[in-house]
Amino acid sequence: MWDKWISQIQQGDVRALARAISLAENDSTGLLETLAQVAIPAKPVIGITGPPGAGKSTLTDALIGALIAEGKSVAVLCVDPSSPFHQGAVLGDRIRMSEWYTHPNVYIRSLATRGALGGLHPRILEITDLVKCFPADCILVETVGVGQSEVEVAGLADRTVVVLVPEAGDEIQTMKAGLLEIADLFVVNKSDRPDAARFQSHLERMVREDRTDGITIPIISTVATEKKGIEEVVTTLKELLRSPGQQEREDLLMMEKAKHLLREHWLRKLDAGKMKASLREAMQSENFNLYAWVSRYAD
Amino acid sequence: MWDKWISQIQQGDVRALARAISLAENDSTGLLETLAQVAIPAKPVIGITGPPGAGKSTLTDALIGALIAEGKSVAVLCVDPSSPFHQGAVLGDRIRMSEWYTHPNVYIRSLATRGALGGLHPRILEITDLVKCFPADCILVETVGVGQSEVEVAGLADRTVVVLVPEAGDEIQTMKAGLLEIADLFVVNKSDRPDAARFQSHLERMVREDRTDGITIPIISTVATEKKGIEEVVTTLKELLRSPGQQEREDLLMMEKAKHLLREHWLRKLDAGKMKASLREAMQSENFNLYAWVSRYAD
Repeated sequence: MWDKWISQIQQGDVRALARAISLAENDSTGLLETLAQVAIPAKPVIGITGPPGAGKSTLTDALIGALIAEGKSVAVLCVDPSSPFHQGAVLGDRIRMSEWYTHPNVYIRSLATRGALGGLHPRILEITDLVKCFPADCILVETVGVGQSEVEVAGLADRTVVVLVPEAGDEIQTMKAGLLEIADLFVVNKSDRPDAARFQSHLERMVREDRTDGITIPIISTVATEKKGIEEVVTTLKELLRSPGQQEREDLLMMEKAKHLLREHWLRKLDAGKMKASLREAMQSENFNLYAWVSRYAD
Repeated sequence: MWDKWISQIQQGDVRALARAISLAENDSTGLLETLAQVAIPAKPVIGITGPPGAGKSTLTDALIGALIAEGKSVAVLCVDPSSPFHQGAVLGDRIRMSEWYTHPNVYIRSLATRGALGGLHPRILEITDLVKCFPADCILVETVGVGQSEVEVAGLADRTVVVLVPEAGDEIQTMKAGLLEIADLFVVNKSDRPDAARFQSHLERMVREDRTDGITIPIISTVATEKKGIEEVVTTLKELLRSPGQQEREDLLMMEKAKHLLREHWLRKLDAGKMKASLREAMQSENFNLYAWVSRYAD
């Protein structure tokens, strides 16, 4: 079943891709085994992350336009909060991106975040590898930049764009701290806001002070709704993709990916029913200890 | 080493607890094995979570005061973002809680969030179990309510208080959606703000509509800085702790805890150096496939 889908995906069958992603989202068996047998093409994956309301979707939309204009094809994964309460917000993004929903060179897919309050879908890594098999030139992954570890986001994407807006406020500060470490490129969106200049110089200072590895992260001002600054973002991204990554960081990310997949592999070998029964039985005991149960059960 | 510390912790030695937590934060070996051999006392763990700026620390501070006034002893874990940029914020919380830092019946400890942009420390579960060995009557765990899965927060605490502030804005909405599912009690803090009444009725409607299990989550208005409503929060929490939890949910949480510890157990058995060497060698190959490597390496 998966084999057939993969070959359909490789031929550009959008419906096969959609179905495969849905199954991957729902933990269907066979995916990991299939991916182990497929030559997954190397292609640029660009992560677009930042706090809610920063304008990630608008920037993504503008990036799609710029790539399409160059004759490229693009696949886009949007990771949205999962609650039914959010249907409105998801729809909002979809409407804003609707210009591209029907374009033959664009594939857009929203993923739910399973149980998490933002951040990445637990299978985003595998799903991105599925999408790599689809004949698109480039993959954009848009995620809410809260809650995931930098390794999760940065490990997924070849290059990560962090979108911020000129704002003070504790919330943005909290997010920025972590986002600082994963950014290959900062976009200060809504840069026509009153406080923009001060925000940008603050960010520049933070970037200089925080990175001890001597790398200067570029900062680009945009007004994505008016497509201002988008061209510079595209040009800079292309330069970033051409320049080699740091070996040390890439080794670390490959190790983290491998650990993630090892954990998946082990968990899949667990028999949940058997595990539950054993756990329940152990919990009957007067001196039940979960740590002791785990070390017994794992061996 | 751990054995000695555990017995010191059981005797109320604050320095032993501090040292043990630091080691647990830094992945010291021996912790899981030690916890497997200790009788971990059952005691109430109350999670206090919500978006940044909602006033979690102020509420925690007020809760400490109320518990102390009843002659109880309290241990508090604060999970703060890890970036050096945040020293200010962490200090801010500490200053606000300084009244209790020197009180003999209060133990307060800040944990860094390792690499995550908020949310929980990856070893929070084990650290909380360590703190349970300390002779405090009750444990409060204060976390930024973004990014962690509901199972992570709810699985940690016996009861979870979600602190919100009357505000509109996309960001709060995004967080609320996930927080709705984990709350045992809502606190609407800063309820003297202009929009408070509208916010509260909006929240009441959401709570009614979203929970299909027929459980009505209590909503309490507070002005924590003036200690208004705190008494009601304490009373309600006590009632909640007395009432039995839902079996189904508790089974689910125990399974999730067990899975988390199983993963830890497996990862610890990995030889990182050997893994890295194997991965590096495999990556030299023309047709390197990470999934194939993982399934070979895991078996």
